[in-house]
Amino acid sequence: MEIKKRKNKILIANRGEIAVRIIRAAQLLGLQTVAVYAEPDQNALHVAMADEAVKVGPASLAESYLNQDAILAAAEITGCTAIHPGYGLLSENADFAQLVEEKGFIFIGPTAKTIRIMGNKSAARQEMAKIGVPIVTGSHQSFTEAPRGLKQAEEIGYPVMLKAVGGGGGKGMRVVERSESFTGEFQLAQQEVMAVANDKRMYLEKFVDRPRHIEIQVLGDGNGHGLVLGDRDCTIQHRHQKMIEEAPSVYLDESTRQEMFSLALKATESLNYRGAGTFEFLYQGPGRYYFMEMNTRIQVEHAVTEERAGIDLIGAQLALAFGTSIQALAHHEQPVVAIEARVLAKSAGKITGLHLPAGLGIRNETAIYQGYRVPSNYDAMILKIIATDFSRENALKRLRVAIDETVILGVETNLDLLSKILYHPDFIAEDSRTDINWLDRQLEGEN
Amino acid sequence: MEIKKRKNKILIANRGEIAVRIIRAAQLLGLQTVAVYAEPDQNALHVAMADEAVKVGPASLAESYLNQDAILAAAEITGCTAIHPGYGLLSENADFAQLVEEKGFIFIGPTAKTIRIMGNKSAARQEMAKIGVPIVTGSHQSFTEAPRGLKQAEEIGYPVMLKAVGGGGGKGMRVVERSESFTGEFQLAQQEVMAVANDKRMYLEKFVDRPRHIEIQVLGDGNGHGLVLGDRDCTIQHRHQKMIEEAPSVYLDESTRQEMFSLALKATESLNYRGAGTFEFLYQGPGRYYFMEMNTRIQVEHAVTEERAGIDLIGAQLALAFGTSIQALAHHEQPVVAIEARVLAKSAGKITGLHLPAGLGIRNETAIYQGYRVPSNYDAMILKIIATDFSRENALKRLRVAIDETVILGVETNLDLLSKILYHPDFIAEDSRTDINWLDRQLEGEN
Repeated sequence: MEIKKRKNKILIANRGEIAVRIIRAAQLLGLQTVAVYAEPDQNALHVAMADEAVKVGPASLAESYLNQDAILAAAEITGCTAIHPGYGLLSENADFAQLVEEKGFIFIGPTAKTIRIMGNKSAARQEMAKIGVPIVTGSHQSFTEAPRGLKQAEEIGYPVMLKAVGGGGGKGMRVVERSESFTGEFQLAQQEVMAVANDKRMYLEKFVDRPRHIEIQVLGDGNGHGLVLGDRDCTIQHRHQKMIEEAPSVYLDESTRQEMFSLALKATESLNYRGAGTFEFLYQGPGRYYFMEMNTRIQVEHAVTEERAGIDLIGAQLALAFGTSIQALAHHEQPVVAIEARVLAKSAGKITGLHLPAGLGIRNETAIYQGYRVPSNYDAMILKIIATDFSRENALKRLRVAIDETVILGVETNLDLLSKILYHPDFIAEDSRTDINWLDRQLEGEN
Repeated sequence: MEIKKRKNKILIANRGEIAVRIIRAAQLLGLQTVAVYAEPDQNALHVAMADEAVKVGPASLAESYLNQDAILAAAEITGCTAIHPGYGLLSENADFAQLVEEKGFIFIGPTAKTIRIMGNKSAARQEMAKIGVPIVTGSHQSFTEAPRGLKQAEEIGYPVMLKAVGGGGGKGMRVVERSESFTGEFQLAQQEVMAVANDKRMYLEKFVDRPRHIEIQVLGDGNGHGLVLGDRDCTIQHRHQKMIEEAPSVYLDESTRQEMFSLALKATESLNYRGAGTFEFLYQGPGRYYFMEMNTRIQVEHAVTEERAGIDLIGAQLALAFGTSIQALAHHEQPVVAIEARVLAKSAGKITGLHLPAGLGIRNETAIYQGYRVPSNYDAMILKIIATDFSRENALKRLRVAIDETVILGVETNLDLLSKILYHPDFIAEDSRTDINWLDRQLEGEN
């Protein structure tokens, strides 16, 4: 993973912990770094750590971190050769990826074409189905009358999830267990959505009950060679936001794991996939898993895979972008379990006191420091704590001690909630008592 | 490594990073912790992190951290069952170990008898020689006249190191290359030491030229069972103070390594050694190594071995002390190189700004925080940074980036010196261009 051209300079089109993470990886490879920042981030750590920093706009995301022209201008002025988009922001914007390459920069990620295909959920699922990846089956066409829906439901097989095209936030969404109750549920759902949106169209999806969220990390070289770097379990979510992630999943049976790995490799290679990517699945038990979507970028939770797979994933992204072959990427699978907790700021404000955990088996990824003012404008995640040990039980103990040790004064955080999760018998149990809605149910139960 | 009696409470008879390290390990095992502290340490991190804290005296070491009665009283009052001495301070004080056990506490370390034997350099060497460990040969008796010394020198073989019993700081120390120059050097050495001490006695040691410092980490259960956990290279020293340590040594040849491991195991078992210990050797090349001394305690540099051997050494000390068998200790050798840099405060003062490195492959062990006042009373080491990767080259790059990223404001540090060492071609080279006096020569050259 050595990059030959030492004069390469990369622009990091992001902020927060991931910008810091990318700067460190670039420094290791001897690359120069350019940060971009919005007005409220002038004292941000990524700005201080990069070799150069360019202000690209005011607080508004659209005018700064999403301002494609300003970012490209910054790359041009500073003489960058490549742009790393991080996660979120412009990372899955196909138009941006295309513009970056049209302007002659390397886009550290897949081609615009790949981003476009995988960015369309239905196109992505069709693409995956073609190569034999199980997908959540559903309506090919929406419908407005019960009898047509009933016919489709019979084809898909019960239970089915009835969804409204115009729905959102759960409106018009209903599980139908059997054909007898279809028409009744259809009418209730349609009425519900019609109260908020003038759209009668409904569609169906196979209902996946209480699934786990399992994802497979891959790397591709853009020339049909792929590498699978293991699975992550990201089941603990609050309102679809992941909060705790583990690598590997202790709930995934070995034969299904190998099957998923082999399909992920096949997909990566058949897509001529370039860079880091993740295949996300719903998992219900041995052999019962369904492709949801692909993320065509590095993910927040990549660190747990780094610990397990023995690889620097950001370093690998950079190395691949600058021409290192995928065969030359060093990775050494470790007999460890890594668990990550995402620490969120629940209010903006100045960090008046800070003590981060440290020591054996503890890794922090953060951009905060004592005296830093957490702005209200951006993502609430201010710190990731990753604990690693040789068993899930020990990694979990280590993470608990680390969370309990962490002190962040000046802003409200979710540290107490994280601690409660880590001590919860359902979370500790290795017989899959949790699912992607488990945390939401726990929190509703509390209120 | 599970400790059954959850009610156990340990007193940590130490301060600084090692006290924090021990508290974290104890928390992982579900043990209660009691810190002791001297007046200037009332705001110290170990005090804040322990479940309870007892003030044992004023600033003076003798009246606080070395105050055996006060420490034992603190253990008694708080209902502790065991005492962990850390390193330095009382950790190798046989009388303290004896007193601790007489008062009915568990001493987390070897028996007083073992400490006594190994604490006497000459007794320790004889003990090692008995079981076949090569030692630096030397005078059995001191002498005051040249002819007797000449006879001994012939027996030992040239070159020899002439040393004064009353010497210190290099006074009266001289290398003699051959018999012709013996008498002249003897007279010069004796005159030199007589100028500072009224003691004519001289003795001889085989002169070991430009050695590396190699040490072997062991654990013992006190019943004749031992475990060897690999070697460390601690060659980079400034005035005999270690500054950079690595595990494993890249300079040690495999056959010598195995020989040293097997002798270390034999010694651990024949001593009925209990707890963590280190055999220190001078190493000159394949097959040429000489036992110097044994440290009957955990060492500052234990963290690099933890990364390499895949073990929590402090956790292992605690587990052994509370009855876990040595066979049950989990360890998983990792294909990694770990390098540690010791960050020293060169002045006392308040830490007004602090940014510690973080991220993949970086571990910090420290007791400082922003706002902490570094007292002038104690050891200058305020932070250990440990970088780990799958090759020495990459671990070294990682450590460089980490050192360059570290910001400590308010006190002077050796960060610049550490950075210079890590970029020095002699240090980078894997053909052993450094020895235990290399750094001293570099620094003299600078002045």
